[in-house]
Amino acid sequence: MRGNVIVGQSGGPTSVINSSLVGVFKTAKDRGAGKVYGMLHGIKGLLDRQYVDLSEHIKSDLDIDLLKRTPSSFLGSCRFKLPEIKDGKEIYDKIFEILEELNIEAFFYIGGNDSMDTIKKLSDYAIIISSDIKFMGVPKTIDNDLACTDHTPGYGSAAKYIAAVTKEIIRDGLVYDYPVISIIEVMGRNAGWLTAATALAAGEDCEGVDLIYLPEVAFDIDKFMNKVKELSGNGRSVVIAVSEGIKTADGKYVFELADHVEFVDAFGHKQLQGTAKFLSDKVSAEMGVKTRAIELSSLQRCAAHMTSRVDITEAFQVGGAAVKAAFEGDTGKVVVLDRVSEDPYICTTSTQDVHKIANIEKKVPLEWITNDGTYVSDELVHYIRPLIQAELSPMMVDGLPRHLRLEK
Amino acid sequence: MRGNVIVGQSGGPTSVINSSLVGVFKTAKDRGAGKVYGMLHGIKGLLDRQYVDLSEHIKSDLDIDLLKRTPSSFLGSCRFKLPEIKDGKEIYDKIFEILEELNIEAFFYIGGNDSMDTIKKLSDYAIIISSDIKFMGVPKTIDNDLACTDHTPGYGSAAKYIAAVTKEIIRDGLVYDYPVISIIEVMGRNAGWLTAATALAAGEDCEGVDLIYLPEVAFDIDKFMNKVKELSGNGRSVVIAVSEGIKTADGKYVFELADHVEFVDAFGHKQLQGTAKFLSDKVSAEMGVKTRAIELSSLQRCAAHMTSRVDITEAFQVGGAAVKAAFEGDTGKVVVLDRVSEDPYICTTSTQDVHKIANIEKKVPLEWITNDGTYVSDELVHYIRPLIQAELSPMMVDGLPRHLRLEK
Repeated sequence: MRGNVIVGQSGGPTSVINSSLVGVFKTAKDRGAGKVYGMLHGIKGLLDRQYVDLSEHIKSDLDIDLLKRTPSSFLGSCRFKLPEIKDGKEIYDKIFEILEELNIEAFFYIGGNDSMDTIKKLSDYAIIISSDIKFMGVPKTIDNDLACTDHTPGYGSAAKYIAAVTKEIIRDGLVYDYPVISIIEVMGRNAGWLTAATALAAGEDCEGVDLIYLPEVAFDIDKFMNKVKELSGNGRSVVIAVSEGIKTADGKYVFELADHVEFVDAFGHKQLQGTAKFLSDKVSAEMGVKTRAIELSSLQRCAAHMTSRVDITEAFQVGGAAVKAAFEGDTGKVVVLDRVSEDPYICTTSTQDVHKIANIEKKVPLEWITNDGTYVSDELVHYIRPLIQAELSPMMVDGLPRHLRLEK
Repeated sequence: MRGNVIVGQSGGPTSVINSSLVGVFKTAKDRGAGKVYGMLHGIKGLLDRQYVDLSEHIKSDLDIDLLKRTPSSFLGSCRFKLPEIKDGKEIYDKIFEILEELNIEAFFYIGGNDSMDTIKKLSDYAIIISSDIKFMGVPKTIDNDLACTDHTPGYGSAAKYIAAVTKEIIRDGLVYDYPVISIIEVMGRNAGWLTAATALAAGEDCEGVDLIYLPEVAFDIDKFMNKVKELSGNGRSVVIAVSEGIKTADGKYVFELADHVEFVDAFGHKQLQGTAKFLSDKVSAEMGVKTRAIELSSLQRCAAHMTSRVDITEAFQVGGAAVKAAFEGDTGKVVVLDRVSEDPYICTTSTQDVHKIANIEKKVPLEWITNDGTYVSDELVHYIRPLIQAELSPMMVDGLPRHLRLEK
């Protein structure tokens, strides 16, 4: 008989983070784990002894399939960074005390590069105190900015949602017989992977977006304005995608541009306005044309009604692979995805040392961005395309997608 | 052998406006029409003799089914108001000259209350000049603000999309263990039908939104702030839905509130900031809590990947009913939907005099809004629920919903 395991979710959620959760749960159960505990609100909740026995909440195959379709973190999330080991020995001792109380054999943490820092520190501390507990990282992030993995679970579904609604926004944006400049703002402070997914909209039935601006390339506002004027010169409508995090050459965010723009609220606070809103206001003012600013907002990470089946499946697999590796003795590792074949697309899992992954951001390679920085290469589109394939249809109840909610 | 017919689309598009287009096309063909012309960009394009023979663009049953899944107006749209007859006789003569050239027996216009004004004026003018051409209005608007009809095609799909993403935003908004105040901004300048649809999110698997503010009730910012403080007092997260058009008792839009807020761009233009953004900034500044402003934006009218089958079917039916009525001799009418049974929901079509509908806005009845103006009644939820039922799954090609685009 194996010991118990515990799993937590951390950082910004995705549409498929619960698929990884059931991947851990089901694989641990199938491989003979005792109890499978879920931390509430990640490591922060665990420190307050907030956890549940997952068997009391995932009771059937239906629950598993509902969880695969439920966005956001079923167990709740946290943004909590453990102190350096030398600065916070008492926190580490408390965590290990709780884990020992619960007879934990393996600890799984589903999160992005910040969360992998938790796995790194806990597995390091386990070595220091000669603990046998295994610590494994399960990757998730819509941002796709994790090192050492072909891509991250969560990215494919976000990319699919972004590409699908971009197609709809393009249809909507080209409907009138006068020019409309639509600017779509996509998540991504430092990495342009999500914004690049708007390139997938182009195809037999869609004109695609005209311009794509990623944070990897310095943004030149004058060149941008000239480009928009050139494109809409003949009176045609233009659709543009920008990352929220695009910056000018001197490192300023675009939404901070132009010091004579003042956005001050009733309390004297400077407001950070959206990038798309800033640019569309500028285009409107300078060119006198109709503009629209569309922020795709948090739906990019929670639109579970439009997920990629490939992504859902891989999210489940990385959860399962983490359990298998831990039960075989691995610790201080993160499960990663290796693309072993392009056509047909085949991806397998392996493990990497967490020290190679924690706190590192992977950006879009510059060779995948066109020379003038206004679009992405075909190679980038070919890289993303397999990740958005196939669907896991929502279970519709009384007209709406059904979710599974943790009953407390 | 019948004569030819012509159909146009006008005003803001919806996810199902093309279902009405194929309803007109297919029914006209089935009932023996000669050619079915499509005006490009509505009456404005027709004045420039811009039209197509729809048989050259809708060539198969596959095309019909793709069009049912294609958002925005296949034929392009316009926002063009005909002058009063006494002020623009030459325009009317030109339109009728073009219609006679094309041997038009019946003219169909798919649009909202502004577009019905076109049908009113053209049918009036037909009487004046003793023309036999029939003019029929086919209703569409996501706003649901048309008089004399139980609801409008386009509303059910927008309501379904809004309710579905509200559920996802709620899951996402409640994930952390500290309070987050999320404010969702929904379309609707004067009528709150769309915002009311956020009430559908509440159910066995969802907490629902906490507060709903419609433009039908004057918005009191102090009462709002007190309500938010009360709800989040225990540290819990709150999700709020507001119509973009909510106004204070003195008739000012909320986004225009507080004269000491200045949003001035580089060119001295005052910016109109979003309602949700304004409120979330105020909550954040006064309460010191994390807030999020989420504008559902144009996806409310173009998210064809999440439509209601009931809506799609009814949109097709009103197109077909308009053709049937015109071929039986009706003119100057609009097809409306009559709910003849609640349970089971059954809706039939009939026709109404366009003079009773054009230019009139139907608002949410005050008895369907709670006394304190912060939520909607169960009656309103029961009214909307049947309209969001069932799905018409997108046709997914290479990972994305497929559309039909007009080849020019």
